[in-house]
Amino acid sequence: MPKRAGAQSELRHRNLSLVLRALAAGDNLSRASIAAEVGLTRATVSTLVDELLAAGLLEERGAQRPGTVGRPGTALALAATGPAGIGAEIGIDHLAACVVDLRGDVRCRTEAPAANRGRPAAAVLAELAELTAQVGKEAAAMELRPVGTTVAVPGLVSPDRGTVLRAPNLGWEEVAVAESMGPGATLVENEANLGALAELWLGGHDRLADFVHVSAEIGIGAALIVEGRLFRGARGFAGELGHVPVRPEGPLCSCGAHGCLETFAGEEALLRSAGVGTPRALRAAAESGDPAAIGALEEAGKALGIALSGAVNLLDPQAVVVGGPLADLAPWLLPGVRAELASRVTDRQWRPEDLVTSRLGRDGVLRGAAYSAVRPVLEAPANWLRR
Amino acid sequence: MPKRAGAQSELRHRNLSLVLRALAAGDNLSRASIAAEVGLTRATVSTLVDELLAAGLLEERGAQRPGTVGRPGTALALAATGPAGIGAEIGIDHLAACVVDLRGDVRCRTEAPAANRGRPAAAVLAELAELTAQVGKEAAAMELRPVGTTVAVPGLVSPDRGTVLRAPNLGWEEVAVAESMGPGATLVENEANLGALAELWLGGHDRLADFVHVSAEIGIGAALIVEGRLFRGARGFAGELGHVPVRPEGPLCSCGAHGCLETFAGEEALLRSAGVGTPRALRAAAESGDPAAIGALEEAGKALGIALSGAVNLLDPQAVVVGGPLADLAPWLLPGVRAELASRVTDRQWRPEDLVTSRLGRDGVLRGAAYSAVRPVLEAPANWLRR
Repeated sequence: MPKRAGAQSELRHRNLSLVLRALAAGDNLSRASIAAEVGLTRATVSTLVDELLAAGLLEERGAQRPGTVGRPGTALALAATGPAGIGAEIGIDHLAACVVDLRGDVRCRTEAPAANRGRPAAAVLAELAELTAQVGKEAAAMELRPVGTTVAVPGLVSPDRGTVLRAPNLGWEEVAVAESMGPGATLVENEANLGALAELWLGGHDRLADFVHVSAEIGIGAALIVEGRLFRGARGFAGELGHVPVRPEGPLCSCGAHGCLETFAGEEALLRSAGVGTPRALRAAAESGDPAAIGALEEAGKALGIALSGAVNLLDPQAVVVGGPLADLAPWLLPGVRAELASRVTDRQWRPEDLVTSRLGRDGVLRGAAYSAVRPVLEAPANWLRR
Repeated sequence: MPKRAGAQSELRHRNLSLVLRALAAGDNLSRASIAAEVGLTRATVSTLVDELLAAGLLEERGAQRPGTVGRPGTALALAATGPAGIGAEIGIDHLAACVVDLRGDVRCRTEAPAANRGRPAAAVLAELAELTAQVGKEAAAMELRPVGTTVAVPGLVSPDRGTVLRAPNLGWEEVAVAESMGPGATLVENEANLGALAELWLGGHDRLADFVHVSAEIGIGAALIVEGRLFRGARGFAGELGHVPVRPEGPLCSCGAHGCLETFAGEEALLRSAGVGTPRALRAAAESGDPAAIGALEEAGKALGIALSGAVNLLDPQAVVVGGPLADLAPWLLPGVRAELASRVTDRQWRPEDLVTSRLGRDGVLRGAAYSAVRPVLEAPANWLRR
């Protein structure tokens, strides 16, 4: 009965993935606590765990911490060797690459300054491929086996075709990124989307599955996570918080409209209004109490809060997470965001603590890229087990 | 092997639903065209169709229209007798009830003027139950068998508990609607949500599965359809377009915030700014060319367009559908909406025709309520077949 065997094997793979994902969410679980978590019998979980240990996807860590009732179980964790993901990031003024293991931990990382604005895409991608080759080699020396690479781009991408459709800040139109990165599976994804996915997978939140994630480098990037998945919209353009109108008769935006959030809280507007040249200088000025810098950040926070109030009223997320470079400016930016949300999101339970600062810092996008390349092993371990 | 039999029966029910939903989307299909549509063999479809005919869920309509190649098949349609749904609507100044058949056609309908603002909920619900009993009786006389009732409410509901949590325009807090409606399955749903679902199911659109639906009576109601499902948000509050900030320093809104869309385009604001007393008078004034009425509608359209631009930039829907009483005002309202969308949604393909006026008219909500009660028969016919 091949049909029935097929169904059983499908069920087995689903259960293997359940066990792996339980360990991704909480380290150092015993077989018994995994069974309780995923709702399978202890015996079934033991069989699955044995298979995953044999395949090198799990490792044992000795007896679980005491304090639990009965004989202590052996603590299990995702393997620190074996499947890994390579992340690559194309910034306006830098390139970076890293490798994460199955746990999402960064195992090696490299970065190079680069003036990418207007630079030929081929040159950018050739340099990026060198960086990924370099971290790939370092990973191999640590018994890690990269299963794919994800390239993070500040622009609009077609994940299906592996291309960048448009990245105005780089000056790119229709660039075949995946193709240029050489052999091996390469995904291409928008950086704001990867920042949000990193938050979902690695942000350390407890069951946070519906949120708006805002980050900013040159523009304002936002992405929506809905029911634990990236919300792309009908044509892949969802999440453009930067072009939500904040003051409809406000300054002209690069997009051609007036008063978009970016004209108040985008990096260019912020630096101009603070009278400084770089984000680093802005932070330093704010730290030293400079009134222009603090005033600029407060106004930007207010504009961000107005746009986010609209988003929360429309989408009713569990939380708003501020990440990326914006998180560094949280002390000056967030009070305005919080005040606008409090006064404009009035007809539901919105609590101040629903506005969250990311703990991933500036590496969120890069880690998200790398982890998105290896995460499929957790979600569909069959492909790895067949190798 | 009961397990395998169970899986086969599940598969059969899924296929029965596929056939029913193909006929809900396009009437008068032959067995062969259904097979082509749903991707099953002609023989399988014939067996399924025979079962559905025997259960009274389908009817034959004689030979299909000529012009198709080969022997003409027998045209099939969803039955005009059998399962039906009752819709009930609680408005500020009226109550209504109707019955739709499996096709979504309204088979009987009744309406009563009522001053529901501040009236005791028990009195409102008792009168509503009388109306639904009346249409239920009329339906029975037409060989229709209502399988449930859905009550549409202008407020926030808990569909799970069958209660209205808050309906400020009625003066309701925590009203157990389902319980008060007597025996039979009663669902309670927000009117804006039902308007959007009506558009999805009965709006006559071809494969429109991602859209923002805007309607208005007293407030501005909006609802989001994503991948063919109602998007409720994490806590059920999604779709509050009326409280998206349009001009952050604008007039004080009833919600306590400043410059919400409702302060520019809600009924109260519109009537005040046009200097008329009722929506009917507003329409008449606009039709007669009254500059105050036309100006008020143009301004409201602009505000609506600003808020919708934000929604489109965030959500990237296929379309924006304007329905409910707003659709009556489309000639004066839509130019402003269209102009704002054109100038503020700039970084994607947004076409003027992506702004659509509903063809359902004022009965959209009521029809959506009734159809939502019978639609489960199409989605899970097993429950009906077992009766």
